[in-house]
Amino acid sequence: MSTSRRKFLASASLVTLGATATAMTPSPQKPRLVHHVFFWLKNPSSTADRDKLVKGVQSLAGIETIRMLHVGVPASTEKRDVVDNSYHVSELMFFDTVEDQKVYQDHPIHQKFIADHSQLWDKVVVYDTIEA
Amino acid sequence: MSTSRRKFLASASLVTLGATATAMTPSPQKPRLVHHVFFWLKNPSSTADRDKLVKGVQSLAGIETIRMLHVGVPASTEKRDVVDNSYHVSELMFFDTVEDQKVYQDHPIHQKFIADHSQLWDKVVVYDTIEA
Repeated sequence: MSTSRRKFLASASLVTLGATATAMTPSPQKPRLVHHVFFWLKNPSSTADRDKLVKGVQSLAGIETIRMLHVGVPASTEKRDVVDNSYHVSELMFFDTVEDQKVYQDHPIHQKFIADHSQLWDKVVVYDTIEA
Repeated sequence: MSTSRRKFLASASLVTLGATATAMTPSPQKPRLVHHVFFWLKNPSSTADRDKLVKGVQSLAGIETIRMLHVGVPASTEKRDVVDNSYHVSELMFFDTVEDQKVYQDHPIHQKFIADHSQLWDKVVVYDTIEA
């Protein structure tokens, strides 16, 4: 690997792939803030509840300050003591700034998401991380 | 917001910003797998230990299957019961596939990172998430 690739990866907040880059929302900044939310369902065996929550999280893409959204479920990676795969849905977002994340928190689309889906989850854990 | 933007954000694994897109590593796939690791230091008050661990995580960028790397520390977002800001360093990576993540796990650069830094941390929690 070249030094330039290492430098790029170490400093870039996001890289992307191929044609998707043309569809991005332009921003004057790098999205330095990561907001990662894990949901545990009240009914862990209900795939209907899980799918509804996944769709709900996807609807958050309507909030303009979100620079990237990844909605997921536990991956089939190797089982290890340090891996927590007990959650049911993952919501991962990038924002440019802490302020942009606050806009998201207060946004009507986010408030509607909570009102429409909070009965589905039993527990939520949030990690907010700023680029070091 | 347009329907196309919503559709794009809901389906894209990653978006990026401006000039950085030109520096990316080409890949035939979307990076669907998220690997998020949180570290708690043995010496929580040691900024030297934290900085050493941050640099160590940044060195992982040398592993070819990593499509994006974000290295962070807790952000100054609003304090809420659901927010866990007790960790000290965050390592967030995207991979194309579960197999690419396994290549990373076994890679000499990763093994060297563990050998050189594992004395710094007291606890590690890992979340592996595949795009829903």
